[in-house]
Amino acid sequence: MTIEKVLVVGTGLIGTSVALALRETDVEVHLSDVDAEAADLARELGAGREWTGGEVDLAVIAVPPHLVGERLAELQKQEVARVYTDVASVKAEPIADAERLGCDLVSYVPGHPLAGRERSGPAAARADLFSGRPWALCPGSGTGADAVRLVRELVSLCGAKAVTVAADEHDSAVALVSHAPHVVASAVAASLAGGGDVALSLSGQGLRDVTRIAAGNPVLWQRILAGNAVAVAGLLDRIADELAAAASALRSGDLAEVADLLWRGVEGHSRIPANR
Amino acid sequence: MTIEKVLVVGTGLIGTSVALALRETDVEVHLSDVDAEAADLARELGAGREWTGGEVDLAVIAVPPHLVGERLAELQKQEVARVYTDVASVKAEPIADAERLGCDLVSYVPGHPLAGRERSGPAAARADLFSGRPWALCPGSGTGADAVRLVRELVSLCGAKAVTVAADEHDSAVALVSHAPHVVASAVAASLAGGGDVALSLSGQGLRDVTRIAAGNPVLWQRILAGNAVAVAGLLDRIADELAAAASALRSGDLAEVADLLWRGVEGHSRIPANR
Repeated sequence: MTIEKVLVVGTGLIGTSVALALRETDVEVHLSDVDAEAADLARELGAGREWTGGEVDLAVIAVPPHLVGERLAELQKQEVARVYTDVASVKAEPIADAERLGCDLVSYVPGHPLAGRERSGPAAARADLFSGRPWALCPGSGTGADAVRLVRELVSLCGAKAVTVAADEHDSAVALVSHAPHVVASAVAASLAGGGDVALSLSGQGLRDVTRIAAGNPVLWQRILAGNAVAVAGLLDRIADELAAAASALRSGDLAEVADLLWRGVEGHSRIPANR
Repeated sequence: MTIEKVLVVGTGLIGTSVALALRETDVEVHLSDVDAEAADLARELGAGREWTGGEVDLAVIAVPPHLVGERLAELQKQEVARVYTDVASVKAEPIADAERLGCDLVSYVPGHPLAGRERSGPAAARADLFSGRPWALCPGSGTGADAVRLVRELVSLCGAKAVTVAADEHDSAVALVSHAPHVVASAVAASLAGGGDVALSLSGQGLRDVTRIAAGNPVLWQRILAGNAVAVAGLLDRIADELAAAASALRSGDLAEVADLLWRGVEGHSRIPANR
């Protein structure tokens, strides 16, 4: 079994980028979106053709996390594809939804490409969005081996590196490396609202970097955070405690405690793969 | 009065970068550092010649914030320069030190170029470090107009843009746009210390950007933060409160409150000049 025909369901940033990446190969790409304008725009960008029915090898469900289960159930009922995957940023929630809705779990391989941009929608899509990026796959005990092989082929066609990880471990991991940092970046950016123009005129690259991801789409991000709420909340509490402790140490002149946080920051920073 | 001869006192990242920038003009640059190795390296990098005495037009004091006042007093006692400036990241503390030590405030123009790198020391210096960057000048009521003119000429020779601002306002501003964000980046980076290798393998550009400045030199940064402790502590407390509130909202499923923070983040992000 190999990928010849793919249906991308949801032509936002990620779905359209998958479609564009596949269009640089021999794969036939079909597109659908409940938002006809988004689907039209993706087609105009050369991401594929309109979906008019017929079976495909693989359906890529690129909709917000809380809609994945529902969409999977509909597509499986219509027998649209032999294998299904999704690209949602959380994994336990869509899998639980799929189970609850009685989906066939043999043909469903939960997935999550670790790539994104601050802009959303098809116009922001890029064929090389996944190039060299990790792409998490979270097959369960009941997932079919053929289905996993096909989705690994998708990952490879998109230029990404498959990382197999249990759904719960995935969700804890992205809470740490993506979701909690997003909320923290938003809190730093929100603190600027009260700053004067002179203060903002003194801002530099450091501030721009710390707050860059805070420009992300709040409508999408509230859904992502809600789908990973407990793990993210635990991390935010820990970071809030660190900051409150640092504030207290600064007020009392306890430089050793401030330095300890800074040194742990240097150490944690060095653990990020590209910084090693 | 124009700049013909400059002494750079302290050949770390900032001092050596100032020297390298001036070396691309007609200015004669002399270097000194209590660390002979750092001074030698800066000379080898072409930043200027060894300081052996004689009066200069301008002394640029590029030492840690808590040493500026002391160094200024020594240099003025030796009548080394007609005009003095410093480059420390906080301004109220060095000015208070200078007053306390009986320095001549007419010839001293407190300054702060808003530029930096994660690496420190002369080897990290670059002639274009200040190009297009703001450079805060904080003259007081007693600062001489000629001295201010000369230091504005230095800023211009380094390719930076002078921003005149009161010392207290400067310190509040950099707490907001630089110092508090630095501590927050350190706290996010420190949270990674407990993460597994799989979790870290899923990290992406967003995390790298949020934590980039956390790689900065803790020895230097603890001094900067200590010199601006009250303003930084106030901001850290506010950000800690935001994060704790977000954690609580996530746990109770209050998506509207989470969305409110994300939207305020988008708004604050858009206030940063280069993001407009």
